[in-house]
Amino acid sequence: MARSGGERGIIARIRQAAGSSDDLVIGIGDDCAVYRTTQGRVSLVTTDTMVAGVHFDSAWHPPHALGRKAASVNISDIAAMGGLPRFALLSLALTPAFASQWLDAFMSGFLAVLAEHGIVLIGGDTVQSEQESVLSVTVLGEMAEAELLARKGARPGDVVLVSGFLGEAAAGLALCRMGLAHDPGWQPLVGAHLDPVPQVTVGRVLAASGLVHAMQDLSDGLATDLAHICAESGVGAVVAADKIPLSPLLRKAAVTCGQSPLDWALAGGEDYQLLFTAGEQQEASLRALVREKTGKELFAVGRIVEGQGVFLEEAGQCREISYRGYEHFR
Amino acid sequence: MARSGGERGIIARIRQAAGSSDDLVIGIGDDCAVYRTTQGRVSLVTTDTMVAGVHFDSAWHPPHALGRKAASVNISDIAAMGGLPRFALLSLALTPAFASQWLDAFMSGFLAVLAEHGIVLIGGDTVQSEQESVLSVTVLGEMAEAELLARKGARPGDVVLVSGFLGEAAAGLALCRMGLAHDPGWQPLVGAHLDPVPQVTVGRVLAASGLVHAMQDLSDGLATDLAHICAESGVGAVVAADKIPLSPLLRKAAVTCGQSPLDWALAGGEDYQLLFTAGEQQEASLRALVREKTGKELFAVGRIVEGQGVFLEEAGQCREISYRGYEHFR
Repeated sequence: MARSGGERGIIARIRQAAGSSDDLVIGIGDDCAVYRTTQGRVSLVTTDTMVAGVHFDSAWHPPHALGRKAASVNISDIAAMGGLPRFALLSLALTPAFASQWLDAFMSGFLAVLAEHGIVLIGGDTVQSEQESVLSVTVLGEMAEAELLARKGARPGDVVLVSGFLGEAAAGLALCRMGLAHDPGWQPLVGAHLDPVPQVTVGRVLAASGLVHAMQDLSDGLATDLAHICAESGVGAVVAADKIPLSPLLRKAAVTCGQSPLDWALAGGEDYQLLFTAGEQQEASLRALVREKTGKELFAVGRIVEGQGVFLEEAGQCREISYRGYEHFR
Repeated sequence: MARSGGERGIIARIRQAAGSSDDLVIGIGDDCAVYRTTQGRVSLVTTDTMVAGVHFDSAWHPPHALGRKAASVNISDIAAMGGLPRFALLSLALTPAFASQWLDAFMSGFLAVLAEHGIVLIGGDTVQSEQESVLSVTVLGEMAEAELLARKGARPGDVVLVSGFLGEAAAGLALCRMGLAHDPGWQPLVGAHLDPVPQVTVGRVLAASGLVHAMQDLSDGLATDLAHICAESGVGAVVAADKIPLSPLLRKAAVTCGQSPLDWALAGGEDYQLLFTAGEQQEASLRALVREKTGKELFAVGRIVEGQGVFLEEAGQCREISYRGYEHFR
C-alpha cells in the first residue's frame, strides 16, 4: 500500500482484499457502497473524513459553515447514485482548541443541513485528540435497486452532462486564500467553496427517469471524476473545452486570481454537481424533465467514446486530461 | 456542549437535536443505532474512533493486533444488541509515520477479523494527516426486530449476568505499561487487551432465546455499563463483589501490579463481554442454553432493583459505584 501510488493505489489494494457477499450490489470504488436489504430495495452508505489543517482551515472556515459542508459532501455521495439520504453518523476527534463554542456552532450547521434533507443523526463517537482534529461523517440512504445509478454503465455514443456551473468552489477557495473571503462581490464563489449544495433532488429525478446510464458527483474535478466513470465503464470520453459551463463571475475571479477558469473547472474539485451520461436521443427529454421538476439547467460537456482515458478538445487540438484533478496523495 | 460535562453531556445535547423518523427504532445513546428496513427486519449501525497516542499506543500495540482490535470493538457493539454483523467501513487519517508497512499489517489484522465473522469491507476513506493518526470504523448489521436487545428493558427483580471473566483487558493494559507485554506468562491478559473477542455468537443465542430483557457490551467497565442499562431502563442495580468473576491469573497480576482486581473489573473497561439482565426464573435455562450452543459459562453478578444507581455490596456494606469507569472526557 505504497503512499507514492496515490490514494487510488491504496483503495485498489484494499478493494481486492475486502471479501464478498451475495447481498452486496456495489462495494468499494463507487460514491457509495450498496447492499440489498429486501427484494428490490437497497441501502447506500458513504463516509468521508476531514482533517483540520488538511481538508479545512478553521482560519477562514467558520464552524457553522464547516458543519454544513461536512454534512453536504456526504449527502452528495448519496445523491450521486440517485438515492434518498435517511440517516447520519458523526465521529469527532477534537483537540482542546476546538472548544465548546466551536462545537456548538459546528453542530448547529451540521444538523441544519440534515434537517433540510429530512435526515436523522443516529449515532457517532466523540473522542479527544491531542494535536489534530478529525471529523468523520457517514450517511446512509435507500432507493429502489432498479433505479440505482453507478459509475459503471456509460456507453460509447452517450452524451456527458453536468448539473451546473463548474469550478465555482475552486475559485472560492482561491479567493479565500487571497484574503477575499468576506468580500461581498465574491460571495457566490466563496459560498460554493464553504457551503456546497448536494444535488439530491436532481439525482432522484435522474434516477427515476430511467434514462441515465452512469453517474457520480463532482468532488475531485471533471478530469478525475469522468475518468472514474470511464474506468468503471470500460470506455473513454472527449470533453469540449468551449462547452464547459463557466459563470461570468468565475471568469472575473480568474482574472483577479491570475488563474485559468478552465483549470478550476477540470481540476478544482468540490463542486458537488452531478456528472452523468445518457443516450444522445434522451438529452432533450432529460433537460426538459430536470427543468420541470427542479428548475435546473443541464449542460452537455462532451461524449463517451470507445477506448479509454479522458481527452479535452480545445481549438482543434485534443490532449489527455485523465485524473488531472486534486488528489490527496499526490 | 461543555467538555467539562463529560462525554455523556455532549452526547445528551446532540441526542436532543438529532431529529426523528418513523423508521428509527433506536437513535443515539445505545450500542448501535437501529432502523427498520422492511417489515420485521432492522439494520444496526455502530461507529468508533481511535486516536493514536490516546486510544492506542503504537509502541506496544503491533499494527496487526490493532487492526484486529479496531474491527472487534465495533463488531462487539453489534453483538451487544444480538445482531449479525454484515458490512464494515474503514476511515483512516494517517500521518506519514504510519508508512506502507504499518498499513499493510493493520489491514491484514482488520480484514482477518472481518473474515472470521463473514463481514465484507464495503467502503471508507483514506486521507493524510500531519500530526496525529485517527482510525474510524463503522460496522453495519441486521436482525429480526422482535429479537432486538437494547439497554432499555431491565426490570426490578432481574438477575444481572455477564458472559465471561471481567477485568482481563485492564490487567493486560497495566502489564503492558509495566513493560511486560511480551512475558509469556501474562499472554492471556495481554491478549485480552490487545485482541479482544467480540461475543457475536453468545449475543445471537441470547437474542433468539427471547429470555433477555436488556443487554450491552462491557466497553467501559461494569460500573459504567450497568449504569447505562439502569439509566435507560429507569431502574437501579446491586452488584455483589464476591460474585464478580475474576480469573486466578488476574488475581496474580493484581499482586504484581499492586492494584485491585475488583477495580479492574468494575472500572477497567474493554472486556467486550456481554452484560445483560433476565428474569430470575430464566437464569438456569439461559445458562444451559448458552453452554450448549457456545460452550461458554455465564456469571450472575447482581440484581436489578427499583430506584436508580449502581451499588456494590461488599462485606456487608453497600456503596454507589455508578459510572466509576473510564470516561474519555473526565
